Amino acid sequence: MKSPEEYLESLRRLKRTAFILGERIDSPHEHPLVAPSTLAMAETYAMAREADHAELFTARSHLSGEPINRFTHIMQDRQDLVYKVEMLRALGRRTATCFQRCAGLDALNTMFSVTYELARSRGTAYHKRFLAFLAGVQERDEVVAACMTDAKGDRRRRPSEQADPDVYLRVVERRADGVLVSGAKLHITGALNSHHLLVLPTRRLRSSEQDWAISFAIPADTKGVTFILGRQPADTRRLERGGGDTGNRYGGHEAAVLFDRVFVAHEQIFMNGETAFMDPIIRYFGALHRTSYGGCKPGMGDALIGASSRLARANGTREVAHIREKLAEMVQANEVLYACGLAASHKGFQTPAGCACADVLLANVCKLNVTRNPYQIARLATDIAGGLLATLPAAADFANEQTGPALRRFLAAAEGIETEERRRLLRFVESTVAGTGGVCYLMESVHGAGSPQAQIMQIQDDETFAKLEGAAQRLLEDR
Amino acid sequence: MKSPEEYLESLRRLKRTAFILGERIDSPHEHPLVAPSTLAMAETYAMAREADHAELFTARSHLSGEPINRFTHIMQDRQDLVYKVEMLRALGRRTATCFQRCAGLDALNTMFSVTYELARSRGTAYHKRFLAFLAGVQERDEVVAACMTDAKGDRRRRPSEQADPDVYLRVVERRADGVLVSGAKLHITGALNSHHLLVLPTRRLRSSEQDWAISFAIPADTKGVTFILGRQPADTRRLERGGGDTGNRYGGHEAAVLFDRVFVAHEQIFMNGETAFMDPIIRYFGALHRTSYGGCKPGMGDALIGASSRLARANGTREVAHIREKLAEMVQANEVLYACGLAASHKGFQTPAGCACADVLLANVCKLNVTRNPYQIARLATDIAGGLLATLPAAADFANEQTGPALRRFLAAAEGIETEERRRLLRFVESTVAGTGGVCYLMESVHGAGSPQAQIMQIQDDETFAKLEGAAQRLLEDR
Amino acid sequence: MKSPEEYLESLRRLKRTAFILGERIDSPHEHPLVAPSTLAMAETYAMAREADHAELFTARSHLSGEPINRFTHIMQDRQDLVYKVEMLRALGRRTATCFQRCAGLDALNTMFSVTYELARSRGTAYHKRFLAFLAGVQERDEVVAACMTDAKGDRRRRPSEQADPDVYLRVVERRADGVLVSGAKLHITGALNSHHLLVLPTRRLRSSEQDWAISFAIPADTKGVTFILGRQPADTRRLERGGGDTGNRYGGHEAAVLFDRVFVAHEQIFMNGETAFMDPIIRYFGALHRTSYGGCKPGMGDALIGASSRLARANGTREVAHIREKLAEMVQANEVLYACGLAASHKGFQTPAGCACADVLLANVCKLNVTRNPYQIARLATDIAGGLLATLPAAADFANEQTGPALRRFLAAAEGIETEERRRLLRFVESTVAGTGGVCYLMESVHGAGSPQAQIMQIQDDETFAKLEGAAQRLLEDR
Amino acid sequence: MKSPEEYLESLRRLKRTAFILGERIDSPHEHPLVAPSTLAMAETYAMAREADHAELFTARSHLSGEPINRFTHIMQDRQDLVYKVEMLRALGRRTATCFQRCAGLDALNTMFSVTYELARSRGTAYHKRFLAFLAGVQERDEVVAACMTDAKGDRRRRPSEQADPDVYLRVVERRADGVLVSGAKLHITGALNSHHLLVLPTRRLRSSEQDWAISFAIPADTKGVTFILGRQPADTRRLERGGGDTGNRYGGHEAAVLFDRVFVAHEQIFMNGETAFMDPIIRYFGALHRTSYGGCKPGMGDALIGASSRLARANGTREVAHIREKLAEMVQANEVLYACGLAASHKGFQTPAGCACADVLLANVCKLNVTRNPYQIARLATDIAGGLLATLPAAADFANEQTGPALRRFLAAAEGIETEERRRLLRFVESTVAGTGGVCYLMESVHGAGSPQAQIMQIQDDETFAKLEGAAQRLLEDR
Repeated sequence: MKSPEEYLESLRRLKRTAFILGERIDSPHEHPLVAPSTLAMAETYAMAREADHAELFTARSHLSGEPINRFTHIMQDRQDLVYKVEMLRALGRRTATCFQRCAGLDALNTMFSVTYELARSRGTAYHKRFLAFLAGVQERDEVVAACMTDAKGDRRRRPSEQADPDVYLRVVERRADGVLVSGAKLHITGALNSHHLLVLPTRRLRSSEQDWAISFAIPADTKGVTFILGRQPADTRRLERGGGDTGNRYGGHEAAVLFDRVFVAHEQIFMNGETAFMDPIIRYFGALHRTSYGGCKPGMGDALIGASSRLARANGTREVAHIREKLAEMVQANEVLYACGLAASHKGFQTPAGCACADVLLANVCKLNVTRNPYQIARLATDIAGGLLATLPAAADFANEQTGPALRRFLAAAEGIETEERRRLLRFVESTVAGTGGVCYLMESVHGAGSPQAQIMQIQDDETFAKLEGAAQRLLEDR
Repeated sequence: MKSPEEYLESLRRLKRTAFILGERIDSPHEHPLVAPSTLAMAETYAMAREADHAELFTARSHLSGEPINRFTHIMQDRQDLVYKVEMLRALGRRTATCFQRCAGLDALNTMFSVTYELARSRGTAYHKRFLAFLAGVQERDEVVAACMTDAKGDRRRRPSEQADPDVYLRVVERRADGVLVSGAKLHITGALNSHHLLVLPTRRLRSSEQDWAISFAIPADTKGVTFILGRQPADTRRLERGGGDTGNRYGGHEAAVLFDRVFVAHEQIFMNGETAFMDPIIRYFGALHRTSYGGCKPGMGDALIGASSRLARANGTREVAHIREKLAEMVQANEVLYACGLAASHKGFQTPAGCACADVLLANVCKLNVTRNPYQIARLATDIAGGLLATLPAAADFANEQTGPALRRFLAAAEGIETEERRRLLRFVESTVAGTGGVCYLMESVHGAGSPQAQIMQIQDDETFAKLEGAAQRLLEDR
Repeated sequence: MKSPEEYLESLRRLKRTAFILGERIDSPHEHPLVAPSTLAMAETYAMAREADHAELFTARSHLSGEPINRFTHIMQDRQDLVYKVEMLRALGRRTATCFQRCAGLDALNTMFSVTYELARSRGTAYHKRFLAFLAGVQERDEVVAACMTDAKGDRRRRPSEQADPDVYLRVVERRADGVLVSGAKLHITGALNSHHLLVLPTRRLRSSEQDWAISFAIPADTKGVTFILGRQPADTRRLERGGGDTGNRYGGHEAAVLFDRVFVAHEQIFMNGETAFMDPIIRYFGALHRTSYGGCKPGMGDALIGASSRLARANGTREVAHIREKLAEMVQANEVLYACGLAASHKGFQTPAGCACADVLLANVCKLNVTRNPYQIARLATDIAGGLLATLPAAADFANEQTGPALRRFLAAAEGIETEERRRLLRFVESTVAGTGGVCYLMESVHGAGSPQAQIMQIQDDETFAKLEGAAQRLLEDR
Repeated sequence: MKSPEEYLESLRRLKRTAFILGERIDSPHEHPLVAPSTLAMAETYAMAREADHAELFTARSHLSGEPINRFTHIMQDRQDLVYKVEMLRALGRRTATCFQRCAGLDALNTMFSVTYELARSRGTAYHKRFLAFLAGVQERDEVVAACMTDAKGDRRRRPSEQADPDVYLRVVERRADGVLVSGAKLHITGALNSHHLLVLPTRRLRSSEQDWAISFAIPADTKGVTFILGRQPADTRRLERGGGDTGNRYGGHEAAVLFDRVFVAHEQIFMNGETAFMDPIIRYFGALHRTSYGGCKPGMGDALIGASSRLARANGTREVAHIREKLAEMVQANEVLYACGLAASHKGFQTPAGCACADVLLANVCKLNVTRNPYQIARLATDIAGGLLATLPAAADFANEQTGPALRRFLAAAEGIETEERRRLLRFVESTVAGTGGVCYLMESVHGAGSPQAQIMQIQDDETFAKLEGAAQRLLEDR
């Protein structure tokens, strides 16, 4: 397993084509806008080396029998699913941001199962190829970015009906030794912190849409791949001299990943035209990844609730009844997220490949809560923090000799807590509800792992309702 | 283990003093107002004999090694806690009511642990006495009513400060062979279906309030004990000739249990003046019983959602988008209850006595949801059912030759579903949101196992917040 | 204007065909199940004679110039709309139930406008006939039941597509002197307390569906009309000897009204085949009647919040912080209903006929709140009332010599409030959240004046959104 | 009345001491971080000159009889209150931000009434002085910043108990010709766009706390006054070359205003030690200003809902059922804010001075909604916008020749809407839910005009509840 330093070094060796704020950047993970997210990712390496986190953060590879980072592990049983949720909560609490490594983990587990099923029914080599890729990732302790969401064009139209067929990534040319693909994968979490891109199609396909049924893994610096960083509110505070206003030294990032006639060799391909297998991809990845949000987001919530409680102490309001009620409501809203993550894990099932997968219904219930509760928590955090959250002068005003002393004097509150701690707490809460952290905590909570309606559609499962109607009818029957 | 018939027969042998609607009734569990609740309780016996429910409904006694009904079992590990939640959901789905046997189960587990701790620290005989009582209950497969909530008088005053000291049940006289107690225990679930009354104090006590720190078990027909049935909306529909308007043949009940200088022998006493031990009673019973609501209420929800889905089919609206959204929201609100019940169980801990107990924080989170979500589900069920829910003529109008045919004609809706099924579904939903079932599904969801504020006070736990503040402060520290 | 006694007497003269609980009843408004609703209706007469309510409850007829009961008045301006809302709130607060006279008022105003528009475009006699009917109603101070909602059959089908064409009331035969109609109007509020039935079609119709486009007014005892009372939870408590458990001496009722080849003379007809005029019927009646809910329901809320506050005093918890918060939330949820009723009235418009009509968007916003907020208020009322709400023994148990004294002793709480007052308060809250009052306060709040989706569909108005998009685009334009 | 240009010019003449991002800035309203807020303020001048807005934006001075900008007008009747709400909504819709001029308006109205009451009871010259100040403001069409909220120190302590007595602004020295004051007023809206500072105390005071009972008006460039701009998320996007990522050319701002021994002459003082008059200040200002939020915030909501609807068209999802439901819910949540603003205005009362003031209860209900509904609207806007909201590349990436064409290609969606419009809509929504606009729309909605608990405390009014309890008791009385 890599040390954080080895991880950072390994990224440096990738020669990527990346743009940030309109400029080509050579080592993008070191750019100040991205570095906080690399730091968060590095914690996935660091915590695996901390004695008291080893149980959660490491596992024994079912391929090699060697200890590996859990972020590269194929889940063997429900306990592994539970450990994942616990690990993600620990990381969320540690970094208060999206640490970006779970989508890759969930995609690895998905493709492990799907290539197995493909192999079983089609006799293809997909599973063997995938195992070879996986073994390398485990051995070298690498980061895999899951590239799933396409540009999608007009949402009323299927891939094959779009004016521009590349708005869903597809095979544009087939060669003896592989294929050329074009398209764009959007919202790719941790893209600039990853060694590999694992590409999956994003939606169910008709049998006539084989060109879009393509899954593969390539190195992040493959020719034809371009990364463009997504902006976040307040992102450029990270560029400010003196700093002090970012609120959190950790961060997350997403990027658009453009594919312009990228060559993919056969050995890198895990699915190629088998449109029928989109079903398990969507089912497994949805269940696994929606459950992950039952770990990371309550972890972020922990930090936000803790900061709110501490800010209330700073303000002198901590023991006022309505503040105590609001803190309890925050915990309530937060623990519900976690409880559903746990429940979905404990009710998990085994895929034919022998990989554990979270319960589909509870995973969707878990994620649907995540699309809502953080807004309530953010509102209560804003309430408790007080109006200064919206009007705090810049760190530079505190540093300025003409204004700093007066600010420190007038923004002093309850004894025993320094104005500087209060200032930092306010910046942390601000960043989490309305700045870079807000992207992770609120927007990503809505859209990550599928927008709310994607969850609702899975909850509207016919089989579920048939059972419920049966229960009701049995009650009527013998009366 | 008793058969349902043996259970009913065993109740008949009790010579209780009971009042229903102002009249003294000899065999109260056979009175039409109570019989539906006895029928629900009988299902706890019936399902233990059904092959496909055996795993959930039976266990092996850790005392005797014999198979017993799980409702008399001391939880040995987290899996036992999980089985309890699953068992309660199965019963909730089967009966769509409160089946009344879990408070006794949770109280048995509580007193098993507390008497052990008492014994350990005080060298008393309490645990031994309790084990003897427990062994009899397990062997004879009996029902124990947990009698906890006192009348409470003026809520601003402690037990020792009340104008009438008996508003909290207490020892009014001490004799060589035992004590005399007076007081009233209110809202006693399943009181008239129980063999034993297991009395516990209801709140923390000061060391000067030893007379109120009394716990014991007595047969339901002990001299000086009087039961008075609580009324429920629409309860007397059960008395109507012809029937057809009750909505559910099962029901639940609560009764006030009055104690007028009731003699309790030493061998029946499990706590007598040890005020310091109220802490574990409240902690264990709260955690166990609040988790139980994560089983029974989602079970009731299953039946209500199923009935709503079926009613939508009857109305011809099942596939309309907004109806599908509402059904999904009902499932969401319902599964969250269950997920928290599961999570609290899976995160359970062992008491010093070796009994498994649910996680305190998650148990409270579980119950607090239960005080809210059923209202949302009931509102959506009302919405989906349509206005007829509020205006359906009586079963007698359907039976009347002059009005029945027209009603059957005009209330026919979608083909394939009889008007009679639609009528029954409407009555079932009505009873669940606003009749006898509404007492179980809504009022009891609010107040059972402690009113909402009792949960909030436990969620406001100082230790929880210290950890959260620590997480936030670590984020600020090294910046 | 009639006195309450004259009103009751005038009902007695009607020879109606009515069924209650499966039996034919001659003077149905005097039947114990209906009498509480007649009493509530009688308050609309009584309050018009109370000096301090005269401004709200009376108006000057724009036809005769005479003072009339506002419930028969055609709204002349926005102030009239505001007075209506205030009048309804005063009645809601007085009776804590549905007093059943506003649907008729709103239907009168609707048909005043629509017959005018019909007359203008078709040169028909409809408006003149309507004015003659209206003048009589105003002069004799009579009650008009609005009969709008049809049985509807399979909701996926239009009137002309139903297996049984009568599931929407229609003309089944046309004669020289009038028409014969058959069908059923469901959920008719105050049907058994009304002098006249004013029938309106319930939905938009195609030009080929002229037989369903029929509106008319007939006396309640017209041949071929049959009333069947709808059941409510706990309705038969009104039959109990001794009483004491009804919770509210007032009540509301709905009935199914069946039409079996009922003859309607031309002079009674206000619309006959003009399908194009369903648009203004739906628009005006929706706006007027949905605004009415912004009066009556906050009035009921006043009584429920007041009872909750008083019960908290009885319990000794009135000044506890969380109880105070909950009471404030109840007021908040309640006043929002009223505010929307007021706003919709103050933004009203004049129809071509010169009748004031509430703002369509705000009226729908008003009613949509009403489908939700009472559930929150009911939940909080249940919370504040305490568990006794679900378990209170019968009035007969309080009257019984063996149990009454103990009950009075143990259910005594805070000094200064008698146990009997506490008992009554509990019964009032129970009836309002789960008994007969719950039908008015919860179910009718959902479905009365159109189910929630009917409001949402009007809120989804294209013109509204075109304006909003325009506002957004202007912001983008010149950047 | 000034033109927008004259307004900007007049600000330039003020020689203020102001700091922005740690630097002393001479003409702060022209600094790029502040200019968007000055532009929004300038719209209050511009719209008063637009023919179709004249009725809302202008009034006739009750002092001079001359036409004046409504933002300097003393409300004469309820219609004036209604016009204010309508004017604020029009401005909110126009600018989609806080335009910063209403707090001053509401403070002028408050002090008009309070100085009148002071004059009446104390025979002082306060009212005359205030009228002189007001006349100048009206004549010169100037902006007044209301300076109310103090630094507050430890919230558990009263002004006189604080370690540093200046954390509530106070008189530190009394001279023959006036007083010297020290302290800090925080969160001062539009501070850098204002000609005058109107200072009011922030809380109820004891009779011993006369030094804190000081109200006065001074020019913004008075000696000893220092302004320090508050930061907002994404504020520095306004500094970026090329621009394109700010989302809204308008903005709002708040600043801390420090007073260091500022001399205030007697003629400028409107209250000096009369602690008893804090009651009407808090009552009137609260009612007036909380009602204002029922205008500006639904105006902002209009723009946000419109942008969401348009974005849905761009995405091709506008007519999908769940999107339509969400848009309806946004309108519902938004119109409720407005309805309460209207209702509070229409139920307004006259102060002894003859100034109209909004209804206290409804004003608080109005503002409490504002602390909540925008979060729901923001969440739904985020949902509808799609994941791109969180990951959109920078405007500079669109401008870059290497990445722009691909971005325009892949982010094209539904035909008929340019990618550039989609990009701008996304930036507008982003800025409103998480950037500079989020400060106005969310944080300020929580804390402006008093934090939520301030509203709840006024809703918990004893008199209100006495009436409600009376209504409930009358229902019980005669049964």
